[in-house]
Amino acid sequence: MITISSVQDMKNTINSYKMKGKSIGFVPTMGFLHEGHLSLVAQSVIQCDITVMSIFVNPLQFGPGEDFERYPRDIERDRRLAEEAGVDLLFYPDVTELYPSEPSVKVMAVDRTDVLCGASRPGHFDGVVTVLSILFNIVDPDKSFFGQKDAQQVAVVEGLAKSLHFPTEIIPVETVREEDGLAKSSRNVYLSDQERKEAPAIYQALQLSSKVYLQSGRMAAIDHFKNELLSVSGELDYVEILTYPELQVPSESDTRLIIAAAVRFERARLIDNIIFTTEEEPECSEQ
Amino acid sequence: MITISSVQDMKNTINSYKMKGKSIGFVPTMGFLHEGHLSLVAQSVIQCDITVMSIFVNPLQFGPGEDFERYPRDIERDRRLAEEAGVDLLFYPDVTELYPSEPSVKVMAVDRTDVLCGASRPGHFDGVVTVLSILFNIVDPDKSFFGQKDAQQVAVVEGLAKSLHFPTEIIPVETVREEDGLAKSSRNVYLSDQERKEAPAIYQALQLSSKVYLQSGRMAAIDHFKNELLSVSGELDYVEILTYPELQVPSESDTRLIIAAAVRFERARLIDNIIFTTEEEPECSEQ
Repeated sequence: MITISSVQDMKNTINSYKMKGKSIGFVPTMGFLHEGHLSLVAQSVIQCDITVMSIFVNPLQFGPGEDFERYPRDIERDRRLAEEAGVDLLFYPDVTELYPSEPSVKVMAVDRTDVLCGASRPGHFDGVVTVLSILFNIVDPDKSFFGQKDAQQVAVVEGLAKSLHFPTEIIPVETVREEDGLAKSSRNVYLSDQERKEAPAIYQALQLSSKVYLQSGRMAAIDHFKNELLSVSGELDYVEILTYPELQVPSESDTRLIIAAAVRFERARLIDNIIFTTEEEPECSEQ
Repeated sequence: MITISSVQDMKNTINSYKMKGKSIGFVPTMGFLHEGHLSLVAQSVIQCDITVMSIFVNPLQFGPGEDFERYPRDIERDRRLAEEAGVDLLFYPDVTELYPSEPSVKVMAVDRTDVLCGASRPGHFDGVVTVLSILFNIVDPDKSFFGQKDAQQVAVVEGLAKSLHFPTEIIPVETVREEDGLAKSSRNVYLSDQERKEAPAIYQALQLSSKVYLQSGRMAAIDHFKNELLSVSGELDYVEILTYPELQVPSESDTRLIIAAAVRFERARLIDNIIFTTEEEPECSEQ
């Protein structure tokens, strides 16, 4: 695995792969890797010739008072895990390398952002789409892999790639979970022992509530989720049922939906979601 | 010359040139070509293997009440001129091809925009950097050519490419002028005969005022320009002397400056500028 910190070296290296006709898979991360990230690498290794990972804790996507400084970092461990997982090229730039001066332009996410996490993190997705525009321009990936755990991010990034015609395909990858169902996250390390025991209730409540939705509708499902969460010490930030990927309030005719929640524990805010369909399983067509 | 209207066909065609190791020069235009555009093509033909021109009247960069509908169009003439000038590939998309749905993201120009034309056209440069981001993603040019006549556009586009790390070099090309000094422009056709006779006074006043600046400073130069323009029936929109390309009010230590003006005639608003330096010519170094 090669590690590169300079934008110009990255562009040159990517260019040499392209000239050989190699396809590029890209896994953008903020580091402190866990199995969720490695599942993205695994998909890229299957689908592309060369797998590029970026590790960059992007200050633009943290709001005031959010955990930019406290965000966990362990580059040596990350480097080892990335190499073992099959990353060919690790891009690890300084902040001043990606943002050498005050930017003259910013990319703004103007759709799919005022719900779920976006509602409580104004500007967050602007920071995400700005850094991804920069990374797409440097890495020039054929395919880019994102975890479905941050379903809103996937929806926003699909919007970015489509609206600005970036020549990269956005590939969502299923959420990786602990054995008890808790979605893997860099922020799980901040949970107390007691919180860690409670946290799997989020996923269980999502599963139950999606079934309640099918029988009794949206309000009943949301009430059910809130009741299930009463046993958890964390504070419910939101639970919403929306169309996916448009993230609109669903009407009866909408069939592809997301139920998503965020729970604020003492030192960590966890998110999770399930995407589900209201349609009957299709019957087998006659042959 | 090949003409292509579809984004996907463009990407495929560009890709086939890239695989052969060809360099791509790009001249983005809104059509109704004149010698100014053709001078950009001439530079691209010299510097690059393949020259791509786009013709797209971009609704995003016209404000309410501006001349989007009235902007002159003549695709058959443009096609002939482009081919004669040496364009290899003409990209001529519909609005719905570049903007197939309401965009999920927008690119905002946050610097170098609140002076000169930007001051009186809020949102204009947001439209410019958004469409250029799209076109850069589709055409993937090694070099992109812009006329120095719209000096603020060059400054903003340099900021776009640098801030988002677009892999294209921005090449400014000197303004092409009529014999009497009037800068070529698509909008010159809207001048009455009398206005056409007056219009060269703009460039003459810019030249004289830049000399006044060197002797008597900024306010004297601006007053001189305004006096020179009294003989013109058009209304002075602005005249400014700023640093270039930062577009800040200059201090005594700033040496690279722009004097730029806009004049509003009955049916056309004309712009022009001169970039000049306050430094002495460097003496020959001893060999």
